[in-house]
Amino acid sequence: MSLLLNGLAASSGITIAPAHLLVESDLSITKQHTADKNHEVARLHDSFTLSKTELQQLYQHAHEKLGQRAAAIIDTQIAILDDPTLQTKIIDRINNHHDTAEWAVKKVEDYYLNVFERMNDNDYLHSRATALRDVTKRILSHLLNVPLPDPALLNQRAVFVAKNITPTDTAQFDRRYVAGIVTANGGRTSHFTIMSKTLSLPAVVGVRDATKIIHDGDMLIVDGIHGKVIVNPSNEEIEHYQLLAGEFAQEQQKWGALKDKQTVSADGRRFEVAANVGTFADIIDAQEEGAEGIGLLRTEFLYMNRDELPSEEQQFLAYKRFVSAMNQQRVVARTLDIGGDKQLGMVKLAHEDNPYLGFRAIRIGLARPEILRPQLRALLRSSVYGRLAIMFPMIATIEEFQQARAILDEEKERLVRAGYQVAKNIEVGMMLEIPAVAVMAEHFAKYVDFFSIGSNDLVQYLLAVDRGNQQVAYLYQELHPAVLRMVKQVIEAAHAEGKWVGMCGEMASNPLAVPLLMAMGLDEFSMSSSQILRVRSLIHQLSTRKLQPLVHRAINAETTAEVQKLVREYVPELKI
Amino acid sequence: MSLLLNGLAASSGITIAPAHLLVESDLSITKQHTADKNHEVARLHDSFTLSKTELQQLYQHAHEKLGQRAAAIIDTQIAILDDPTLQTKIIDRINNHHDTAEWAVKKVEDYYLNVFERMNDNDYLHSRATALRDVTKRILSHLLNVPLPDPALLNQRAVFVAKNITPTDTAQFDRRYVAGIVTANGGRTSHFTIMSKTLSLPAVVGVRDATKIIHDGDMLIVDGIHGKVIVNPSNEEIEHYQLLAGEFAQEQQKWGALKDKQTVSADGRRFEVAANVGTFADIIDAQEEGAEGIGLLRTEFLYMNRDELPSEEQQFLAYKRFVSAMNQQRVVARTLDIGGDKQLGMVKLAHEDNPYLGFRAIRIGLARPEILRPQLRALLRSSVYGRLAIMFPMIATIEEFQQARAILDEEKERLVRAGYQVAKNIEVGMMLEIPAVAVMAEHFAKYVDFFSIGSNDLVQYLLAVDRGNQQVAYLYQELHPAVLRMVKQVIEAAHAEGKWVGMCGEMASNPLAVPLLMAMGLDEFSMSSSQILRVRSLIHQLSTRKLQPLVHRAINAETTAEVQKLVREYVPELKI
Repeated sequence: MSLLLNGLAASSGITIAPAHLLVESDLSITKQHTADKNHEVARLHDSFTLSKTELQQLYQHAHEKLGQRAAAIIDTQIAILDDPTLQTKIIDRINNHHDTAEWAVKKVEDYYLNVFERMNDNDYLHSRATALRDVTKRILSHLLNVPLPDPALLNQRAVFVAKNITPTDTAQFDRRYVAGIVTANGGRTSHFTIMSKTLSLPAVVGVRDATKIIHDGDMLIVDGIHGKVIVNPSNEEIEHYQLLAGEFAQEQQKWGALKDKQTVSADGRRFEVAANVGTFADIIDAQEEGAEGIGLLRTEFLYMNRDELPSEEQQFLAYKRFVSAMNQQRVVARTLDIGGDKQLGMVKLAHEDNPYLGFRAIRIGLARPEILRPQLRALLRSSVYGRLAIMFPMIATIEEFQQARAILDEEKERLVRAGYQVAKNIEVGMMLEIPAVAVMAEHFAKYVDFFSIGSNDLVQYLLAVDRGNQQVAYLYQELHPAVLRMVKQVIEAAHAEGKWVGMCGEMASNPLAVPLLMAMGLDEFSMSSSQILRVRSLIHQLSTRKLQPLVHRAINAETTAEVQKLVREYVPELKI
Repeated sequence: MSLLLNGLAASSGITIAPAHLLVESDLSITKQHTADKNHEVARLHDSFTLSKTELQQLYQHAHEKLGQRAAAIIDTQIAILDDPTLQTKIIDRINNHHDTAEWAVKKVEDYYLNVFERMNDNDYLHSRATALRDVTKRILSHLLNVPLPDPALLNQRAVFVAKNITPTDTAQFDRRYVAGIVTANGGRTSHFTIMSKTLSLPAVVGVRDATKIIHDGDMLIVDGIHGKVIVNPSNEEIEHYQLLAGEFAQEQQKWGALKDKQTVSADGRRFEVAANVGTFADIIDAQEEGAEGIGLLRTEFLYMNRDELPSEEQQFLAYKRFVSAMNQQRVVARTLDIGGDKQLGMVKLAHEDNPYLGFRAIRIGLARPEILRPQLRALLRSSVYGRLAIMFPMIATIEEFQQARAILDEEKERLVRAGYQVAKNIEVGMMLEIPAVAVMAEHFAKYVDFFSIGSNDLVQYLLAVDRGNQQVAYLYQELHPAVLRMVKQVIEAAHAEGKWVGMCGEMASNPLAVPLLMAMGLDEFSMSSSQILRVRSLIHQLSTRKLQPLVHRAINAETTAEVQKLVREYVPELKI
C-alpha cells in the first residue's frame, strides 16, 4: 500500500527514486566550563582553521559542479568565519565566563540567532541565520570530533530525506545522484528552497515526521508541483507521475528562451515581471532570471547586524549601488518595514500582544522621524543614478500618506537647497496591504503615483488570519473571492486616475492567481527571481481578453474552492 | 493657568468641584514564610471573620443609600469570601509551603488573577478579578493591620482622584459629597465605569499621572462627556462648563421617560435597541434600562472558574433562565468565543504570535466539536422557553458557516428524535467581524437569518490595528469612511435578501455613529445597558430621511476627521 504525505511544494518538478535518509550529527555539548582558558582558545583557533580548509574545498566543489549561486552560499560562510568580531566574541566568552570553546561558540551563536530569529518574513535574515548555524555546526564538529553528514557519499540516484537541509548540504550535492528532496521542516521561502530551485531539484518541505515515516530505501514519488510525497507507490501511480514529469520538463525547457524577452500576453498586452530583493546578491539573481525591474527593494538589510542606525551616507552608498546596477530599470524601494515579526536590535520596540496589528512600518517611521528622514535623504540622493521609486509600507489612512509624503518633499527641498542632485521624476507610492485602503482605493489613487499590493498582509487582514499560525493557516486563501474583489477594485481605481498597480506578495507568482491578475490589468508582478520565467511563460500563453469571463465568474464565486476550479477550467494551460 | 488633562469619557455629565485624593494603603508583605502553621491558620480565620463583618456593614450602606446594583457588588464579594475553595486553597498553601497567612492569600490571589487577567474584552471576568482583588485587599488589611482608605470620610462635595477606584470604594460613596471621579487607570468597560454611570457621576478614566498632577484641593472641571479634566480652570472656563452641564442635565431628564417606549425615529422608522449581557445580573440591568431584547448573550461566563467544561445540562439550565427571563423578547446567544485575548483554563490553547489573527471562536468550535455540540444542544433545548436566536462568532468563509449550521441542524434532529422540544423558528445568524465577509456580504446573506456586526473586531481588521495597543490606538477609527462603507454594504446586502442586521460593538452606542447607522437602516443596536436610553433618545430626535445626504457625504469622505465634522454639521442635536 502506498502512503500519501502532504507538505509544501518548494521546488517544482517530479521525481521518482528511492529514499536516502540524512541523519544529523549529535553535536550536544557536555562540558560547559573549564579553568584552562588558553587551551580552549587554542582549540578554538584549530577548529576555525580546519573549518576554513573544508569550506574552501566545498567552495571549489560548488563552484565547479553547481555554479555561482551554490558557491556564493559557501562564500558567505567563509566570510562569517573570517569576521574578526565572531572570533573576538567567542574568545571573550572563554576569558570572561571560563566557557569551554564549544560552549562559548554555542552561546555566541545563540546571541546572534536571537537577533535574527524572530523574523519570519525576511529571506535575507533567514539566510544569514542559516549560514551562521552551518558555520558554528562545522566549528563544533571539529571541537567535538564528530563528523558532519556528507551528502557527497551518495553514489546512486536517490531522494534525500532529512529534518533540515542546510545550504552547505546542497553545496555538497552531486547532481548526478540527488534526485529530489523531502524535509520535515522548512518553508517555501527558505534559502534551501531557493537553492533547490536553482538546481532544478523537485522538493517538498514541511512534511511532518518525514524522517520517522520514511525509511532508507523506500521508493518515493516527490511531486514538487503540488507538494505531495508518495511512499512506496503503486505501478499505476508511478506511470501517472512519469507522464506528469515529462510534461513538466517540456514546459520548463521553454522558460530559458524567455530570459531576455519582454512580458507580453498572447493578445499583446505588456506586463512587467519584476523581482523582490533584499541584498545585492539578489540583484544578480534578478538579472540572471530576466527581471524587468525591482518591484520591491527591502531596505531592512542595511539595519541588520549593527548596534546603531546606519548613517545617511552608508545608506546612500548602498542604494546607489542597487539603483545603478539596474541601469534604467525601475527600482521600487520600500522604506524601513520593521515591527510585526521583524525586530531590530537598535530600535527597541515594546512587547505587543498582536504585533501584526501593532506598531510597525510607517507607523514607526512617522513616530520616529529620526529613522525615516535619513533614509529618505539617502534614497533621494541615490535617485540620480538610475530610476528610483519610493514607497511607504502599511499606510492605513490618507493622513499617513500625506504626512510621509510631506516629510519626503521637505527632505527633497532641503537636499536641493544644500546643492545635492535629486531626480525630478521620482515616483512616490505606497504598499496597499490594509483592507480599509483597498475599500477607499479611489481616494488614495489621487495622492499616490502607484500602489504595490502587499498580498501577504492584505490576505491576512481580510481573512483575520496569521498565515504563520499552523492552526489557522488553511484560512490564508489568496484566491478567496473577497481578495480578488479588493484587488480588482484597487486596479480599477488606480487606472481611473492614470496610476499603475504592482503586487509584491506571493500571490503575484501563484500560477492560479496570475491569469486572474493579468486579466484584471495588474501592471507589475514582483516576486522571487526564481519564479520570474515561469510567470512570464504563463503570461505569454494567455490572452487577457479571453480571460475576462473567468474574472467575472471568479469575483462572483462564493468560495476559494470554486475559484480554483474555475481557474483550472478556464486555463487549460495550467496542465499540472 | 488652567491645565487640560485628557482621558476617556467613562460616565457622562459635567461637574465642577475641588479634588480629593484617595491614597492607596500600603499592603506590602514583608514576611513570607513561618514555621507556625496553626498560628497562621488562626490569623487567617480572624481576618476572614473581620472582613465579612465589614462587608456586611458595607452591604447595608450600599443597599440603603445606593440601590440594588451597588449592593450586588458587595454581595459578590461576600460570596467570594464565603466560597470554601478559596479558604481551602489558602490553608493548603500555609500547610504545604509554610507560607505566612498574608503570603498565602497573595499567592492564591495571584493564581486566580492569572486565570482571569489575560482577558481584556470580557466585562464579566474583569469584574470577577476586581471583586477578588477587593476581597483579598480587605483580608490583607486585617492581617497587616493597615486600614483601607475610607471614601465615607469625605464630608464636603469633592471629586475623587485616585489611581483606581474599586467597586468597594463606590459602594462606600456618599452621594451627597462625591461630585465626580478621575482615575489614572481604567477603561471604558471597567466595572467601576458602569457603577459611576448608575450613580450618574461624571467620570474620566485613564488620565495619565492624574494622582501626581492633581493636588488635594485643586479646583477641577470633570467633563465626562468628552473625557477632559481641567485643573484650576479660569472663570470663563467655569462659566462655559456650567452652561454645558445645564444642557446635559436637561437632556438626561428626558431619558427616563423613554424606558418603556419603543425606539422610533422622528420620521417613524422602528429600531430595536438591545443589550449586550454576560451574566444574569446584566439581564436585570437590561430590563431596568428598557432593553428591547438581548442582542448579544456572551456565553463564556458558563465556562469560567471551572476545571472542566460545563455539562449540557448545566448549560441548558443557564440558557433557559436567560431566555425565559426575557419573555418573548429576542435573545441572541453567541456560541463560545474564546481565543484572541480570552483564555479558558480547561481549553488549553497554544501560544500564538498574533492571537487576534489566530485560533479563536468558531475556528475552535469547528476543530473541537466536543465543545460546540453540547453547547448547541443546550441552546436548542432552551429555545422553547422564549425567543432564542443563535449566532456563530468569527465566521470568515461560507464553508465555515455551512459547517456550523450543519452541526446545529444535526443536533436539532437528534434532540427531536430523542423526544426533546425544540422551537421551530430559531433564527441562526453570524457575527460579521471579518472584512472578507463584509466584502462578500451578498453571498453570506443568502445563508444566514441575520448578521450581527461585531464592530470592534471589524474595525481592528479593516485598519490593521489592535485597539488595546496604546501605540497605535489612534488608528482604531469607528468612523473611518472604509468602516462606514462596509457597514452600509452589509446592511444593503442583508436587506436585499430580507434579512436583518444588528451591531453589538461599541460603535452601536457611539453618538457620532448612531445617526449614520440609523440612516443606513441598521435594524438593531446592541450595547451596554447603561447606553440604551441615551441612544433611544437620540434616535427619537432624528429623521432617517433627513440624514440620507449625511450618509452619502460620509461614505464619500476621505478621512475620519471629515466624517466627524460632517456628523456634527448635520446633527445639531448632538449639542455636547
